Amino acid sequence: MRKITRLCQDEAKIHALLSKAPTGFLGLSTENTPYVVPLNFVWHNACIYFHGASEGRKIEMIRENDNATFVVCESYGTIADPVPAKTDTAYLSVMLFGKVGIVEDLTEATAAMQELLNKYVPGYYDTPLASSHVEKYRSSMGSKTAVFKLVPAQISAKESPLVEEMAFYPGRKASMDVKE
Amino acid sequence: MRKITRLCQDEAKIHALLSKAPTGFLGLSTENTPYVVPLNFVWHNACIYFHGASEGRKIEMIRENDNATFVVCESYGTIADPVPAKTDTAYLSVMLFGKVGIVEDLTEATAAMQELLNKYVPGYYDTPLASSHVEKYRSSMGSKTAVFKLVPAQISAKESPLVEEMAFYPGRKASMDVKE
Repeated sequence: MRKITRLCQDEAKIHALLSKAPTGFLGLSTENTPYVVPLNFVWHNACIYFHGASEGRKIEMIRENDNATFVVCESYGTIADPVPAKTDTAYLSVMLFGKVGIVEDLTEATAAMQELLNKYVPGYYDTPLASSHVEKYRSSMGSKTAVFKLVPAQISAKESPLVEEMAFYPGRKASMDVKE
Repeated sequence: MRKITRLCQDEAKIHALLSKAPTGFLGLSTENTPYVVPLNFVWHNACIYFHGASEGRKIEMIRENDNATFVVCESYGTIADPVPAKTDTAYLSVMLFGKVGIVEDLTEATAAMQELLNKYVPGYYDTPLASSHVEKYRSSMGSKTAVFKLVPAQISAKESPLVEEMAFYPGRKASMDVKE
């Protein structure tokens, strides 16, 4: 399958995807071994915020190496073509590189948690999240949970736009698309 | 948000997700810097196959370090809870660790490309993919395209099952869920 990709420099599109993508993929590495973890997250104040246990593999890796990559991707379907090599996928992906670390400031951590609730359970709570709740917030293992922040030093985006009239759908046949 | 995660050891579930997930996330690393790239792929003969340009960042990184991680994830919705810290996401994720490299064998590469077509444009072609097509297959940059294979040395899966009666939907309110 051919990849007709191009850089996307449309900041509105990039921010929209970062704001709405339900799952992001955090890349970490230690000892030359990469690690990828799917996460809920929010794009807030031009940073990626997520939460997680303050013990375990992720935090151990971050302590050893705080270089991180974060990727979100949205697919718009497959583009069919009678020439197999021209089959393509329409998508937009955004990749961020930067340093990741724990948010120590309680006000910032509470704001990030509030944004997470706004994103994943919008309108569910009548009252804003209390910082005391965040302070006491512990994971199911009984250990403290941390709010993490990835500060992007670099953001890039790639896209392959959907060619509407060539979008694949079940039942579509190459014979229907051959131009005589 | 609390994470009630547990290891998933249901091989049928793991294989089903690997077979149907439309996008996988490949993690690579060089010089202590992680890199994550979203990919179309197929799970075939207990390996991950994907294709891509035989020049560029991905292949340069693989040449330098062939340790790879591959992740697929499916979300089943958000679990609401009047206690904010108990908000959770239902998901299944599968993570593979192993070595990644180029498939040199034309028969194997053709079979993998056929599987990719079967997955992304099922039923579109009347005839199987000819190996001569794969041989000539070149990317839009005019460079050769390669088929890659990740041979998993380790597979793990995590899941957080959906609690149906607590699934969040727009309009749901914490006040509706408080037990007096």
